[in-house]
Amino acid sequence: MDIKERVKKLRNLMEERGIDAYIIPSSDPHQSEYVADRWRGRAWISGFTGSAGTVVITKDDGGLWTDGRYFIQAEDQLKGSGIRLFKMREPKVPTITEYLVDTLKSGETVGFDGKLFSVTRVNNMKKEFDKNGIDINSDYDLVDEIWQDRPEIPKDKVFIHDVKYAGKSRAEKLKEVRNEMKKKKAKNYLISSLDDIAWLFNLRGNDVNNSPVFISYALVTETRAYIFMDTNKVSEDIKEELLKDDIKVKEYSELKNSLKKITDSILFDPLRTNYYMYKQIPFNRDKIKDSEVTTKLKAVKNDTEIENLRNCHLKDGVAIVKFIHWLKNNVKDGNITEISADEKLTEFRSKQKDFISPSFDTIAAYKEHAAMMHYKATKEGQYTLKDEAMFLIDSGGQYLDGTTDITRTIVLGDITDEMKRDFTLTLKGHINLTIAKFLYGATGSNLDILARKPLWEYGIDYKCGTGHGVGFLLNVHEGPQNFSQVPNKVKLEKGMILTNEPGVYKKDKHGIRLENTLLVVEDEKTEFGQFMKFDTISYCPLDLDGVDVNLLTEEERDWLNSYHKEVYDKLSPFLTEEEKAWLKEETRAI
Amino acid sequence: MDIKERVKKLRNLMEERGIDAYIIPSSDPHQSEYVADRWRGRAWISGFTGSAGTVVITKDDGGLWTDGRYFIQAEDQLKGSGIRLFKMREPKVPTITEYLVDTLKSGETVGFDGKLFSVTRVNNMKKEFDKNGIDINSDYDLVDEIWQDRPEIPKDKVFIHDVKYAGKSRAEKLKEVRNEMKKKKAKNYLISSLDDIAWLFNLRGNDVNNSPVFISYALVTETRAYIFMDTNKVSEDIKEELLKDDIKVKEYSELKNSLKKITDSILFDPLRTNYYMYKQIPFNRDKIKDSEVTTKLKAVKNDTEIENLRNCHLKDGVAIVKFIHWLKNNVKDGNITEISADEKLTEFRSKQKDFISPSFDTIAAYKEHAAMMHYKATKEGQYTLKDEAMFLIDSGGQYLDGTTDITRTIVLGDITDEMKRDFTLTLKGHINLTIAKFLYGATGSNLDILARKPLWEYGIDYKCGTGHGVGFLLNVHEGPQNFSQVPNKVKLEKGMILTNEPGVYKKDKHGIRLENTLLVVEDEKTEFGQFMKFDTISYCPLDLDGVDVNLLTEEERDWLNSYHKEVYDKLSPFLTEEEKAWLKEETRAI
Repeated sequence: MDIKERVKKLRNLMEERGIDAYIIPSSDPHQSEYVADRWRGRAWISGFTGSAGTVVITKDDGGLWTDGRYFIQAEDQLKGSGIRLFKMREPKVPTITEYLVDTLKSGETVGFDGKLFSVTRVNNMKKEFDKNGIDINSDYDLVDEIWQDRPEIPKDKVFIHDVKYAGKSRAEKLKEVRNEMKKKKAKNYLISSLDDIAWLFNLRGNDVNNSPVFISYALVTETRAYIFMDTNKVSEDIKEELLKDDIKVKEYSELKNSLKKITDSILFDPLRTNYYMYKQIPFNRDKIKDSEVTTKLKAVKNDTEIENLRNCHLKDGVAIVKFIHWLKNNVKDGNITEISADEKLTEFRSKQKDFISPSFDTIAAYKEHAAMMHYKATKEGQYTLKDEAMFLIDSGGQYLDGTTDITRTIVLGDITDEMKRDFTLTLKGHINLTIAKFLYGATGSNLDILARKPLWEYGIDYKCGTGHGVGFLLNVHEGPQNFSQVPNKVKLEKGMILTNEPGVYKKDKHGIRLENTLLVVEDEKTEFGQFMKFDTISYCPLDLDGVDVNLLTEEERDWLNSYHKEVYDKLSPFLTEEEKAWLKEETRAI
Repeated sequence: MDIKERVKKLRNLMEERGIDAYIIPSSDPHQSEYVADRWRGRAWISGFTGSAGTVVITKDDGGLWTDGRYFIQAEDQLKGSGIRLFKMREPKVPTITEYLVDTLKSGETVGFDGKLFSVTRVNNMKKEFDKNGIDINSDYDLVDEIWQDRPEIPKDKVFIHDVKYAGKSRAEKLKEVRNEMKKKKAKNYLISSLDDIAWLFNLRGNDVNNSPVFISYALVTETRAYIFMDTNKVSEDIKEELLKDDIKVKEYSELKNSLKKITDSILFDPLRTNYYMYKQIPFNRDKIKDSEVTTKLKAVKNDTEIENLRNCHLKDGVAIVKFIHWLKNNVKDGNITEISADEKLTEFRSKQKDFISPSFDTIAAYKEHAAMMHYKATKEGQYTLKDEAMFLIDSGGQYLDGTTDITRTIVLGDITDEMKRDFTLTLKGHINLTIAKFLYGATGSNLDILARKPLWEYGIDYKCGTGHGVGFLLNVHEGPQNFSQVPNKVKLEKGMILTNEPGVYKKDKHGIRLENTLLVVEDEKTEFGQFMKFDTISYCPLDLDGVDVNLLTEEERDWLNSYHKEVYDKLSPFLTEEEKAWLKEETRAI
């Protein structure tokens, strides 16, 4: 069945059910960013495989909305599908809601699967639709009806994430959660975020590629807690251990009934709770809408986690340095491709203690492929690397003692002046954010411009945030903090970690990104308040072959030299003599 | 009648009407920042005269809530009143709502004059009160019943603000407003913001000290518009002119009836509309809540306004340069006080064409007085200036062709190294923001850090935003744009103006603030989007005696030198030979 046939079948079903436009988002019932294959319905219906995007099918039109990271990829993958690309946030491009309001007539109906939409998203749409007499129907999962070989929810067992890594016991975490519930006067708390549930119960699973979560909901009451999931995935030993803290495992499908029987106030995050489950809560219960309590608690890493993270990033640094050394030494033989380079890096990582898997699909992009922010190499389309130009590799690992995410743009030979300038501007942005000293209370949207400014001065921008939070043996993207121009009320707290990854993406030319992970730590306290700063916890040289020293300020050069010294000092004990000598040169003072 | 008697009378009335706690805010029915004397009821009942603060009186307690700017003044003014000071945003100090929830029992009633509270504020309080069984009564203006010599609404006539200044006719503005109404599907639009009404109808008044607004509401329908105000303040000629555009003047008190008779959808800003008027709108009308449409339109100055503003700032620069020249030449005689300096500056301003009045109460603060951000000199407490230390003067003018707001910190003699360093850091912050090049889409909360960063690096912060919008012959503080760490979704648009005023405030030591007005203009457009920058439209030297050149980067020095050259070139034609020679030296390249 090709894309056009799938869309045709969908249109037939739409007509049958009286639906005039049907929306297929990229999410699962937990509003996850990365989803199990079962919920890749948007990719299945459109052919567009990027991580973010929403398809709308009407009687005679089809559109995919995605953001700047994916414009190039989407244009390519949508060719011949009859589905048009809507470039989100570009001037004059309507939002999905605007498009639907413009396209549909009063009395017509927008359909979607209520499980795949958050309460907030539905309510926002509904407000606009109501004004225009457009109805909604959230009852049908039409994609399910035509997707014959739709994957099942994975059946892998869950495992316990030892408290020696997690730092806090289930009981301690539940106590913190119940404290927050009390403050918000909530007797029940529904958690839908998969990584929050894994964090809260110190459990990990294998349901989503590279994200060790398991498909589940959780319900916390004042005295008990319930995990709704495939109970076969939990061993008797684990069930017993959970019971010690009054945590009971119930079937995934049972949440619906439990919600129907709620007798008192219930707290939930309307951005993470799906509309279908929300509708199960009896009408007259006190519904307390607030952002996920567990997300905030999870974001501030405890001392044990931080100690583990430092060690985990050290191991990861050793792996990636060994990889770059190998790459630079072997590239001229002409046998390394984008995919084989990625495999080699994973091989280096897998030799490190407690490594589990990559933390996301590696972006291994040579030459102009790197201009696609979220490029994924394919066997047919990939390049073979040569000793020229630049190779961007954005990768990370899941370890028992943490999750990493690091990007290096590696100079493999001669590069143009423009490339060198762009590399250096990216580096300047990266350093400016890294060395920021800021008053406690500042948010990532206050600080974002520090990374962007050196690029803006040359009329360059990157169409994404500057960085994101990272989980601990969890999702590589984690909130609530981030570095972004988008308004954000989340103060940067001591113990939070964020990536710092400015870049330059020039279509058909080149792509550059330099990414480390930063830990928020305290600086001095003065009469004006508590000042904060960042501590870089990723260790890997930034390629000096890309740097135009004349463009750096003294302060920037000082930071680079001292970072490189630290990289050498920390990593060299774990390297061969040859690698050591090479790293010495790569980290030389400039 | 002293404060205690007033409070006692209030308590008697409260008991009569079954009210257990009564709230008296500092606002008027239009949620104005600066209010006419008639609405200074909070000052009358408590003795506290600061611009921001709310009083709560219960049967046996009384409290004033105010912010950090006023802690010292409030403590002083509340002495012996029986009213306690609640320091807002200090640790463990309850908000008014928290205090009332804690103090009152279920079944008791909170009273206030619904005209003085915005819809949003009442709804937020109500949510908490409802949870605790506390009732509200918004019907009584109890202060009015005991305030015998309460001032009337001023009776000054309104005048027409000629389109040669305003740039757009009433008809054009109404057309823009109706376009926005159509987009929001509103048949009626209630405007409560006084400056928005003055702007929309190209009228000005004299009801609020230094802000040329007139007390009024406006109601715009698809074909007509109504201004509700004291009709005696509008001449027959003006009434006739207004009628040409289907604008009718009705009595202030008639709005209530007009709202009761609304038959269709109505748009209003719940942050600016008072609860009393909101309650008059029939229950089942479509109430469209959105931020004031006119505020957004008014914020983007049109080309005529910009041309006028440039001229107005030039005249203002001439006045302030003449003032600084006079001050520096005469200070050693020992006859200049904070107040007399302010008077002299107003004298210089009043000699400029089309000057009307100051645009706000001047802050003229010598030595450590300047550490109080909103200092107001009194005859008893003021300093006499000497030829030493620093004098901060923050002032502005209302002209027919615009409103100005400028701060200079003037070095009158020897200053300490710390003062010089702090002056230079403030200057660095000021320059960093001024020279920013930014991608269209950035907000003031994205950019704010540019001004703050040089100070943060030394552990210094200022406890306020970096800048605000400015009206055009209107309020000196105008939204919706600003420079602040607080999240703000308002993109900086071409034609917006904002002040840039970082500072250092060290209690009992010194205060420094350097403020110019910036105009948002376009820079280059690249493949990455439209870039923007600022054009400084205030012209006055920044005191080089305060500058430690070693702390400036080359870029900062270049900006300062080129700004000073521009100041000299622009202003010198309007100065005496002596002033010219002096200005030449003050604007010398460093």
